[in-house]
Order: sequence, then C-alpha cells, then structure tokens
Amino acid sequence: MALKIGLLGLGTVGTGTAQILLDSQGRHPLLQEIEIHRVGVRSPDKPRSVQLPDGVITTDLEAIVTDPTVDIVVELLGGLEPARSLILKAIVGGKHVVTANKAVIARYGDEIYTAANKAGVYVLLEAAVGGGIPVIQPLKQSLGVNRIHAITGIINGTTNYILTRMQTEKGEFADILADAQQLGYAEADPTADIDGLDAADKIAILASLAFGGRIKLQDIYCEGIRKVSATDIAYAEKLGFTIKLLARASRYEPAADNTPEALQVRVHPTLVPQTHPLASISGVYNAIFVEGEPIGQVMFYGRGAGAGPTASAVVSDILNIAGVLKTKEAGTQKSVQSKIQNPKSKIDTLHPLLSCSHQHYCAIAPMNELVTRFYARFLTQDRPGVIGKLGTCFGNHSVSLESIVQTGLQGELAEIVVVTHDVREGNFRQALDEINSLDAIDSIPSILRVL
Amino acid sequence: MALKIGLLGLGTVGTGTAQILLDSQGRHPLLQEIEIHRVGVRSPDKPRSVQLPDGVITTDLEAIVTDPTVDIVVELLGGLEPARSLILKAIVGGKHVVTANKAVIARYGDEIYTAANKAGVYVLLEAAVGGGIPVIQPLKQSLGVNRIHAITGIINGTTNYILTRMQTEKGEFADILADAQQLGYAEADPTADIDGLDAADKIAILASLAFGGRIKLQDIYCEGIRKVSATDIAYAEKLGFTIKLLARASRYEPAADNTPEALQVRVHPTLVPQTHPLASISGVYNAIFVEGEPIGQVMFYGRGAGAGPTASAVVSDILNIAGVLKTKEAGTQKSVQSKIQNPKSKIDTLHPLLSCSHQHYCAIAPMNELVTRFYARFLTQDRPGVIGKLGTCFGNHSVSLESIVQTGLQGELAEIVVVTHDVREGNFRQALDEINSLDAIDSIPSILRVL
Repeated sequence: MALKIGLLGLGTVGTGTAQILLDSQGRHPLLQEIEIHRVGVRSPDKPRSVQLPDGVITTDLEAIVTDPTVDIVVELLGGLEPARSLILKAIVGGKHVVTANKAVIARYGDEIYTAANKAGVYVLLEAAVGGGIPVIQPLKQSLGVNRIHAITGIINGTTNYILTRMQTEKGEFADILADAQQLGYAEADPTADIDGLDAADKIAILASLAFGGRIKLQDIYCEGIRKVSATDIAYAEKLGFTIKLLARASRYEPAADNTPEALQVRVHPTLVPQTHPLASISGVYNAIFVEGEPIGQVMFYGRGAGAGPTASAVVSDILNIAGVLKTKEAGTQKSVQSKIQNPKSKIDTLHPLLSCSHQHYCAIAPMNELVTRFYARFLTQDRPGVIGKLGTCFGNHSVSLESIVQTGLQGELAEIVVVTHDVREGNFRQALDEINSLDAIDSIPSILRVL
Repeated sequence: MALKIGLLGLGTVGTGTAQILLDSQGRHPLLQEIEIHRVGVRSPDKPRSVQLPDGVITTDLEAIVTDPTVDIVVELLGGLEPARSLILKAIVGGKHVVTANKAVIARYGDEIYTAANKAGVYVLLEAAVGGGIPVIQPLKQSLGVNRIHAITGIINGTTNYILTRMQTEKGEFADILADAQQLGYAEADPTADIDGLDAADKIAILASLAFGGRIKLQDIYCEGIRKVSATDIAYAEKLGFTIKLLARASRYEPAADNTPEALQVRVHPTLVPQTHPLASISGVYNAIFVEGEPIGQVMFYGRGAGAGPTASAVVSDILNIAGVLKTKEAGTQKSVQSKIQNPKSKIDTLHPLLSCSHQHYCAIAPMNELVTRFYARFLTQDRPGVIGKLGTCFGNHSVSLESIVQTGLQGELAEIVVVTHDVREGNFRQALDEINSLDAIDSIPSILRVL
C-alpha cells in the first residue's frame, strides 16, 4: 500500500505537514507507506522551507481533488472558500479528507458529513481544535463509552496569551493587544480571536462530538474579552479566581421534567477558581477539560497552535486513515450486509469510531436558563445603605449572594464587588435591571460569570 | 454483530465495567452490540452491586477463556497468576484480550504480544496506566507521528496523595501513610506503591509504546518516597519546587557519537519546578506529560484509579476492538497478502495502530550516565570554611552549583542545602564520596533529583 496525499496549501501548517511526511524515520513505520503526490499552492515560485520532489507543486487545486490517484486530500487552506467546495469535490470523488479548518466544519459540517457518509469516506479534523492536543480522537474513541456532562476548554491561544499577560503585568487589554499584534501573537484584525468567534467554532465541533448531535453556530452564546479590565483581573485574583476565556458545552438540566433534553453552549470570559486545573493554563497553551460518567474529570493540555503541533495532529489523522484502510485490506471477507441495509449510503463500510454518524441538531437552551455564579462590579454613590439596597434587589429576584464587599473609592464613587451563589441568569438580569433603576447606582462596569 | 464478552473478575473495576455494559443508553451506540456472556468470580454467592442475568456467573475461569463463543476476554483479576496463564490461553484460542493488569504486561508483555501477533488478536490495556485517562490509545495513534523525546508521569495515586498531604499539612511520611491506610488511600502492604514498583510497571508500558521497543523491568531505576521528609518538602517549596514521585523515560543522548541509542527509565522522588504543569497535579490525580517533535509538550490529566475511571478505560478498549472488527466485517475484499508475507504470524491482519509490532528490547543507559540537576541537604560542623570545602569538592568533579545556602542549625550542626546545575550523575556521586570523607561533614540526609 502506498497512500497518495493531495495537499492543499503550503503555509505554516502545510509546510509542517510536508516536513513530517518527508522525514518519516523514527516515527510510526506506517508513515513510510504514505506519499505526497500533489501540493496545491497559490504562488509556485515562492521560496519554501521544505524540499518537495519536482512536479509535485501545482496551482491547480481542482486538479488535485479530482485526481483519481489521490487517496487523501489534506485541506490546509483555511477560510471558507474555496476550502468548502474543494472538500466536497474530494468527497464526491471518493477521497478521504483531513482538514484543520474549524470554520468550514463548524459551518458546513452537516453538508460535509452527509456527503462523506454517502461516499463512504472519512473526514478527520484533529487539528481543528487545540492544535496538536489529541482531543478529537480521544472523544470519539476512549471517551465514547461515557455519558459526557460537560466539556470546557481554553481553546484560543491568542486570548489566553493576552489574559495571562494582563494578569502578570497588571496591564490593560488595549495595550497588551497592541503589543501582542507587534509580536505576532495576535492578528492585525484580531476580531475572530478577541470576540470569541474562533472559540465558538471550536466548541461547536467539540460539543458535536461529545454529545453526538450537530450544533448550529448561531445558537452559541459568544462574548469576547474586550471588556475585561485590569481592575477585574485584580479583584478576581484577590477573591481566588483567574479570568479565562472559556468555551463550554454542558447538558442542560431543567427543573421541569417535561422539558426536552438540551445543551448549553457558550463562550465568555469566566472567573475560574485558582484550584481548578484550567486556572493554571497560561500563555498560548490550550486545555480541554471533560466531565463525564463514569470517568469523572480528564484534561488534555498542550500547544493550541503553531506549525509543529498542528502538523502533528494533521499527520495523525492521515495515519489513522492509513491504519484503517490497511486493516480493511486485510479484512477476511467481503460483507454484503452494508449494501442491503442502506443502499443510498456507504456509511456502514466506515469504521464506526472514525466516522460521524449523528444527523440531528442538538437543542440549545437560552442563556436566561443558565444556572451559574456571577461576579459583578458596581460604581455607586458613596452613602450609607447602598449595600443594603443592592442586597434587597438581589433578594427580590431570588439571587443569593456569596459575598458583597465595598472595595474602595473610584473618585467620588464607591466601588462594590458582588459574587453570587448559583442563580438562574434570567433572575440575575432582572435583579440588575432593578438595581440599574436605583438613584444610588452610577454604573455597572463589569458582569462576569464564574465557573 | 453481537460481540460476546468473557469477564474475569468482578471486583471494583469488574463491577464498574459490567455496569457500563449493562447500561449503554446515552453512550456510544456500538456498545449496544456488546454482550456480557460469562463472568468468572471466586465467590459466586457474594452480594454484588450489579445485577447480571442468570447463569452468567461462574467460578470456572478456564471455561471462559476456552469458550468458543467468547470474542473478547476482559481480565480484571490483578496479580500475576492465574491472570497470565488465562490471558495466554485466551489468545491461543483466538480471543482478543482487554486487561488492566500492568504487573502482568510489564513482566510478560513479550510473551503475551508474541502470542497475540501469532494468533492475530488484540491485547489492549488502556486501563493499566493512569486509570481513566486516555493515554495508551493517544500514544499509539495521535502521537505516533512524533519522535518522542521523553514521557514523564505522576502515575501512582497513593504516593501523590501522600506527598500532597505532606506538603499541605507539613506532616511526616510515616504519619500520613498510616492515616492514608486508615482512609483506604493506601493498602495494608503499601510496598508496591510507596517503593515505586507500581510506577515502574507503568513507565515500562508507557516507554515501550512511546519508544517502540520492549523494556526489561529490572533495567528501570526505582526509588520510592519513604525517605522524603517534611524538611525537604519545605525547603523545596522555598526554592520554588514541589516534590513529586515521577516516572520518566527519555532518550539518552550521549556525548560520544559512537554510543548506540538508548533510553533512560527511572522512578524517583523529584523536585518539580512550581511553574511546570506536573507540579500542580495533586491528591489522587495522575498526569502524563509527553515531549516530542514536532508536537512540543502535551499532558493528559485525570483520576488514576477508582471503579468509574478505570472501567471507562476498559470499556473503551472493548469499543475499539468492536469498531475495528465491524470495519473488517465491512471490508471490501479478502486479502491474500498477509498469508504470503508471513505465514507463521497473523499480525498483518491486525490494525497497525492497535496492535503491538515491536519485538526488540530497548537498551537502557546506566544511572551514572544520567544528566540532571540535584538537590542535596548536608549536616555539617558549624564552623567557617565548610561551604568553601563543599564547593571545592563539587568543583573537583565538574559539578557546577546553582545555589548553596546555609539554611540554619539543627542542634549543634549546620544545615546546608545545595542545588546543582545539570551534571552527570556519576560525577555528582564521586563528589559526594569526597565530601563524605571530609571531617566537617556529619551526614547527608537527602539527595533528590530535580526535573
């Protein structure tokens, strides 16, 4: 068996991928049976840090995905188009696909997996979440026997880098972001990272695997880190928390028994207790924390980006496909079962732990139904009785408080920090509305959720 | 397909395994095709917290491993015999094996995998290391494309529990051990845990997977935690370290180019920098830290023992075998290749990422060749010039010091704590011999390695 790879894109990750494939000694022996057949690029004459055989590089991406000799198309272009169309064409042509493209999978996963199941091919995406961290494959295989309760991740390196620096340097968001851009840790247009959109794409993928249903991206609540201030980071630290941008998907357990099962999927800055394993994940590192029955808690940690780690994940997907193809080659007998059961689809010919068989969309509960602790910071008139009034408003809406502290003065205003017990978000918001109407309240600069 | 399981042992993990298999709703759908056919126990009339169908329980373990209808034997007896013999009989009978038995695999892995490859069956052991943490499967699959440099683990829950309590309570080893035994966190005979033997079994297995060769258990350097004192934990903390029992396997990179490649495999208490991800793994939790090229660093974290987590790992192995058997069933054509290439073995019929193909033993370098930092504590006469003499002795043997501090007095003796730079262990030991011969030296209560 020599498996032929058609590689789309030779940027950072594409180059890293080619480097592993061209230098297989000391790695899994199966890699020696995998061959780079074609590499599609935009600028064929650009100097490259990887030496490919003559004639491999082409600018004709279409020709790669329709080349009958290519077995696996590795899509590392990024962006939505032409990536989506090329992936679909490759699938229709009976090619397996490996991709690092979280944006395409989070948006077009339905279309892509439906096509893949029909064609009987794999679409693997270990590199789409958490860089090199093995998390997709463990979720499909090792953790599949569990009932997953929640999956919580620090899955965007840029925001974790910024928040870590804000904490260690006591700096403000805008300054650290500007510096991160200069150093190449944040993009010129940082929106996708800073506003949580990248993390939302990734949690959609993780939730889909953990809970066995597809996720509509627009159902995910998404709030970035622009409004996180040095002040809040400092207060959080004093209270025993570290502020992290968490992406979290969990089973929604409604009070009423007749509500159908649903998930809660959200991305927002969160106060994480300093004793929690996620609190110590710093800088550009990522971690994914999984809770389930009966496994309890497990966490996967590593570099969330970069040529090496991401290429490791890409090539591990290629290896997994090679492994299963090789096993099938050695299969004992042709099965006719699959043809009979479902003539319109070849999904039965696929390895059930590598393929993606779920087809329904998960119901997502609204944020008002979320039950969580909150942290809020108020600026108020500096006069007696204000804390009492705040407490009364919270009490009116069944919001029970863990602590309420006047932390000092900001000019002529008093600053009050509140941490609640678990509360329904809808109730908390109603209490805030009532508080906002109080004369003594100047403003509410921060409202953050607590893990 | 209905896969029939023959379960050997119905203790904590066996019961947890049966519970998952009997309650498959909300887990991977493939579990519904797996059936508990026979369960072998010693005392059939013992009350059980799991309800098995009538006629499933038997005391005849031999009958289970020779039952022609059993597809997978799940060995959860523990101990060396009859576990080893039953596993071998199951293999010869063409049954796949899932086991949590690190002791058997670390000692008889060679014999067992040779038999398994000949018979064309899988022997999976995710539960043998790190309880529920998915680490064996990721090492075989996701990380296989890397060149692994080192694998370092906190893989014994009992010792980590004791060391964590010694640190938080400033207690001495013997007291905390006694209390841990009372609470059920340590066994009545704690030798296997406390002296590092359990960790040695596990690092042998991890090293074998990470470096693709078999490991002789007797080649592993093994030192337990009996001699770790509250004093050293306190000094380590002041110096920025946490003391952990680490098991580590790494490539040995000799200075001379003509030395053959070898590994260093060792278990001993170690000063871990507080900033290192392993430093914050506390209590009964386990973590495995893998370094490789190009992935960099990844870490796997979770509960290292307990019915639920370990059963999760056992059933994930069953699921993996079910997945690959199902795929093979749907295989396109019978391959004749395997018969021709190697008529004495059926290994070619196995999935190359699930089977274990390496057959050579790794060379293990002697501890004297280890290059590491050291921490040492000396009790000396309290007179001028002692620090200078210590420094001179170290210098005579090319031991470069990072710090040397007189920390105070113990009775009439002065206490001096030294941390070295990286040094060849042989040189360090020679320096210690010279120091021991100094008049001014009373004793050297502690010598610990630093990560």
